[in-house]
Amino acid sequence: TVKRIGIIGTGIMGADHARLLTSAVSGAAVGGVFDLDTDRARGVAESSGGAKVFTDPYALINDDDIDAVLIASSDATHEDYVLACVAAGKPVLCEKPLAPTVDGCARILEAETAYGSRLITVGFMRRFDPGYTDLKALLATGEIGAPLMLHNVHRNPAAVPGMPSANLITNSAVHELDITRWLFDSEITEVAVHTPRPTGNSGGTRDPQLLILTTASGVLSDVEIFVNARYGYEVRCELVAETGTVTLDAPPPTSVRRSGLHARELPADWRPRFAEAYRLELQDWIDGTGRGATAWDGFAATFVAQACVNALESGERYTVEMPAIPGLYRRQ
Amino acid sequence: TVKRIGIIGTGIMGADHARLLTSAVSGAAVGGVFDLDTDRARGVAESSGGAKVFTDPYALINDDDIDAVLIASSDATHEDYVLACVAAGKPVLCEKPLAPTVDGCARILEAETAYGSRLITVGFMRRFDPGYTDLKALLATGEIGAPLMLHNVHRNPAAVPGMPSANLITNSAVHELDITRWLFDSEITEVAVHTPRPTGNSGGTRDPQLLILTTASGVLSDVEIFVNARYGYEVRCELVAETGTVTLDAPPPTSVRRSGLHARELPADWRPRFAEAYRLELQDWIDGTGRGATAWDGFAATFVAQACVNALESGERYTVEMPAIPGLYRRQ
Amino acid sequence: TVKRIGIIGTGIMGADHARLLTSAVSGAAVGGVFDLDTDRARGVAESSGGAKVFTDPYALINDDDIDAVLIASSDATHEDYVLACVAAGKPVLCEKPLAPTVDGCARILEAETAYGSRLITVGFMRRFDPGYTDLKALLATGEIGAPLMLHNVHRNPAAVPGMPSANLITNSAVHELDITRWLFDSEITEVAVHTPRPTGNSGGTRDPQLLILTTASGVLSDVEIFVNARYGYEVRCELVAETGTVTLDAPPPTSVRRSGLHARELPADWRPRFAEAYRLELQDWIDGTGRGATAWDGFAATFVAQACVNALESGERYTVEMPAIPGLYRRQ
Amino acid sequence: TVKRIGIIGTGIMGADHARLLTSAVSGAAVGGVFDLDTDRARGVAESSGGAKVFTDPYALINDDDIDAVLIASSDATHEDYVLACVAAGKPVLCEKPLAPTVDGCARILEAETAYGSRLITVGFMRRFDPGYTDLKALLATGEIGAPLMLHNVHRNPAAVPGMPSANLITNSAVHELDITRWLFDSEITEVAVHTPRPTGNSGGTRDPQLLILTTASGVLSDVEIFVNARYGYEVRCELVAETGTVTLDAPPPTSVRRSGLHARELPADWRPRFAEAYRLELQDWIDGTGRGATAWDGFAATFVAQACVNALESGERYTVEMPAIPGLYRRQ
Ligand SMILES: [Mg+2]
Ligand SMILES: [Mg+2]
Ligand SMILES: [Mg+2]
Ligand SMILES: [Mg+2]
Repeated sequence: TVKRIGIIGTGIMGADHARLLTSAVSGAAVGGVFDLDTDRARGVAESSGGAKVFTDPYALINDDDIDAVLIASSDATHEDYVLACVAAGKPVLCEKPLAPTVDGCARILEAETAYGSRLITVGFMRRFDPGYTDLKALLATGEIGAPLMLHNVHRNPAAVPGMPSANLITNSAVHELDITRWLFDSEITEVAVHTPRPTGNSGGTRDPQLLILTTASGVLSDVEIFVNARYGYEVRCELVAETGTVTLDAPPPTSVRRSGLHARELPADWRPRFAEAYRLELQDWIDGTGRGATAWDGFAATFVAQACVNALESGERYTVEMPAIPGLYRRQ
Repeated sequence: TVKRIGIIGTGIMGADHARLLTSAVSGAAVGGVFDLDTDRARGVAESSGGAKVFTDPYALINDDDIDAVLIASSDATHEDYVLACVAAGKPVLCEKPLAPTVDGCARILEAETAYGSRLITVGFMRRFDPGYTDLKALLATGEIGAPLMLHNVHRNPAAVPGMPSANLITNSAVHELDITRWLFDSEITEVAVHTPRPTGNSGGTRDPQLLILTTASGVLSDVEIFVNARYGYEVRCELVAETGTVTLDAPPPTSVRRSGLHARELPADWRPRFAEAYRLELQDWIDGTGRGATAWDGFAATFVAQACVNALESGERYTVEMPAIPGLYRRQ
Repeated sequence: TVKRIGIIGTGIMGADHARLLTSAVSGAAVGGVFDLDTDRARGVAESSGGAKVFTDPYALINDDDIDAVLIASSDATHEDYVLACVAAGKPVLCEKPLAPTVDGCARILEAETAYGSRLITVGFMRRFDPGYTDLKALLATGEIGAPLMLHNVHRNPAAVPGMPSANLITNSAVHELDITRWLFDSEITEVAVHTPRPTGNSGGTRDPQLLILTTASGVLSDVEIFVNARYGYEVRCELVAETGTVTLDAPPPTSVRRSGLHARELPADWRPRFAEAYRLELQDWIDGTGRGATAWDGFAATFVAQACVNALESGERYTVEMPAIPGLYRRQ
Repeated sequence: TVKRIGIIGTGIMGADHARLLTSAVSGAAVGGVFDLDTDRARGVAESSGGAKVFTDPYALINDDDIDAVLIASSDATHEDYVLACVAAGKPVLCEKPLAPTVDGCARILEAETAYGSRLITVGFMRRFDPGYTDLKALLATGEIGAPLMLHNVHRNPAAVPGMPSANLITNSAVHELDITRWLFDSEITEVAVHTPRPTGNSGGTRDPQLLILTTASGVLSDVEIFVNARYGYEVRCELVAETGTVTLDAPPPTSVRRSGLHARELPADWRPRFAEAYRLELQDWIDGTGRGATAWDGFAATFVAQACVNALESGERYTVEMPAIPGLYRRQ
């Protein structure tokens, strides 16, 4: 009973998912791959135990030998592929964002709601990171009281010079938007964005930024997003509750003393930091446990990200007026 | 050539300063003490090598055997005592705040400016904390580029239930206002205050709060001030610069493994945390090195604190329109 | 092409291996289980996707539907089961020790050598721990020069009161014996054991102990083994090389501030600490990559452990005179 | 009532003591200085507020304007100067070692015993280090039970190539000999020394070494002494007790994220590490509190160091047979 997964998009993320499904996940195999670059698809197919190479993504989605679909293609293509999966009645794991626009996400919600049961998972892998799950578990014990604040830091070493300032929110901080919603089980109702003078290394992009999010439950979550931090990749947070705090910093297992420093290494990008999260996300998806983000979560992330972009541009606090959650996505 | 110091106010702070001046500072002695509670003054005088007990603070200030004055009395009395010191032409170290109101601070500036040279030092002791001075020294090397953000955390275990929400700013976060100005050598020009729902332990006070400060140089400094954090006293910050960051967390020298935890102890209040800062502050003051905060710094701290209180009450961003710095306080 | 694994012994370790093989390892399934307690075997079989329950371990070993065997039964039974696997020509992963006596291990070496190729892997899972592999990889870069010393700490919260003092070496420190050999690619040639007065919590066992191991290459490896440390489970080490050191302490991803402490949790036993090592060990074994410990490694660990027991009893330095490594186990 | 201190030897240590006595210790002044290099003495005298420069150390010791003497000259001169101080009835703080030979120390004990009260303090400054005093205080609470082991690490970046192997013990590890005696209030009764192959950077000196010390109370204290560790200066230890451990590592207050590393700086030599210990040691000496090491402690350190040198040379365990403590040094 091995599930045969079809992968659409075999860039860095898609290839890595193929590797995990082939070599580190129980009960899965890569059944087919599609990429605009067929040579690249062929390479991934070969290292995935001889998966079939498709030249038409819709053929992959509708192939009887494909049990479920993983979408890791460019953001703009997500909507069409996800809708095709829903039409085919196939489970689909779509890398974030579910769709880049609120309207696109809404059309997906409509389709899945019409279908009548959940097929879609959105790849917010941090929900599977052992650090974040520790944080949530510790909060649930009640030992540190009710949550009040969350301080987040999200840094990448380098980004494309001069890229749109909104991208820091829609591409990067969107992970913290999702984590804030997930950790506190509460929607984000107000946002504001503050910015210092930009780093000299961003080519004009307003980088870094400080997002201020307020949840319906009254928690304040601030997010430093800095995509040209140069020194390395880092995601950290500190949860402040009524009688204690929890810090997630995920230190590596070893430290080195050399050249006058006692140091722990920081990763160069997000993959080593979240390697275990990706593995657990895929295993959970294959197992059908359903702990991953739903289409509603994907919609909400895009909706709040758009509100943050508005707040960045206007410089003012912005109330987030999200539509009501469809019944399909309410917790039982 | 020992300087004889007169101490006004022998509560916790004044008594501790007396102890340091007597036993841990070179070239100083306690020459006289005054306190509304004469018995308390007498106790401190005895443990300070037999200092004279005054029943009139102005007599102490004007006594020929008193070379300089340390003011650690209640906030509302600072202005009068400082003005008396200036009138007497005596160096004075005044615990923060210089005065609780902007007008009071302005009157002090006027008096000192009229006097024509600097006599006043304000007790922003963090400027002498080895952690903060490390931070400033590292920034000065240029090795991590220009500063962009400063994330501050300032927590006390408990405060008076129901105390005015403004006090979090004027009593506590005022230290971060001063540190932000000092670290970046730049005035604060804009402020905003965000608040989550308050902790259940504050008796109605809006606690914690998140202050957002912007300096003239474009640095964004955010401050979590939380005076009912329960778990202990803690002051930390992280400076974010263009190519690196510096974290000040001041861990104690030892850690303990016991009962399933590997832990470092946190202090119960600010005194152990800043013991070394107080000693160095006093030694610097006795030495006349003049690295302490000036009356202008005391004025600016109160001025910005008032702006933050306005921002807290209005919920809006607030531009800080500070008067020009008098010539006496400009750096040579 | 899923490998069907037969598991002999379904206690804590065997049940955990069954769980991993079923739910977290790619390309594996539990094909059969045996335990003296057939009810216990039946429980594990059910949660492993309906594996067959055997009442005769040799029947399991020789069953055509079993591709490979995992031995997690009591130490004294290892030799017979391993020999049966070799006789059947089946790959076998045997929990440490390969056999409790040097003679038993020698008989296994003889059988495998006669068989002519390697079938046996010994469950020294630390070789797969990301911390230890980091350590070895960093040493291989040459960036900190040649190794000189290794300081090891190995603590358990509690042991059976009054258990034989030799057990600290043969059951627990044997992991450090293996790690020392593996990390430095060199045999241990001299041992000594020092002991303080025993803890009052050991019921007479000489606990803790300090082992001093010298490798043929001249590295000194000291091992604190303490099985009644009470506060938790902990395995750490520091490698000292010519120009730097590496510390392995494997901190968890989160830390908590509460009740006056800033703390990271320590595990209560070895399973959470080495969960990832077990998963990777099993995946490697299923993949047939062969990075696990060989029968020779199992022999050497038992041989050196016996030398340490002699040193403990005599109080003197003890030269380890190991026989020559058979050709089958020499690295190509 | 300022004590006027005469300093013999104005090299690195003597000059630093002069600076502290002048600028950071209450109740002290440098009254006179002597150095074989009179120019060097003159420089220190000038920066110490115009102390008198002596050309004869015995004239300094016997001068009526000198209240107490600090000896920081070369090791071989300590005995004569200390004896002269005793003859003059003056308090003396002598840098370690009290004398390089057991016989020299014995003569000093005899002289002080004949004098009839304690005049001598030996500069084992670690007894005043806040980390070590925390360790001792925590042990005294009983919260972690009785002590069993102490693991010490003592590293210097570089030493004179080819220096005698015994110097690692007599010059460096002697601090750990003292700390072991002080922390456990128990004499060292057995020693052994193990050595790996030496680092390639020592020029033939047996470096590093591992000392194993056993106290009369049954504690095992191991000491890694490594004087060519290259990467920096570091002193750490971990105390292992029946229900918990305490680690002393004295991290600096700040850490830096830069170039792929999250690091804390390590000092280049012992002075920044023990700056606070030196200040407190001097203040305690000036105050006459008498918490410093006595002549007996100086004798014991040299006696045990000699036993360790014997153990290094013989390769065997060595019983330390120290004479009985004279009544003058018994605790009241
Ligand atoms: Mg993602
Ligand atoms: Mg203050
Ligand atoms: Mg094992
Ligand atoms: Mg010394």
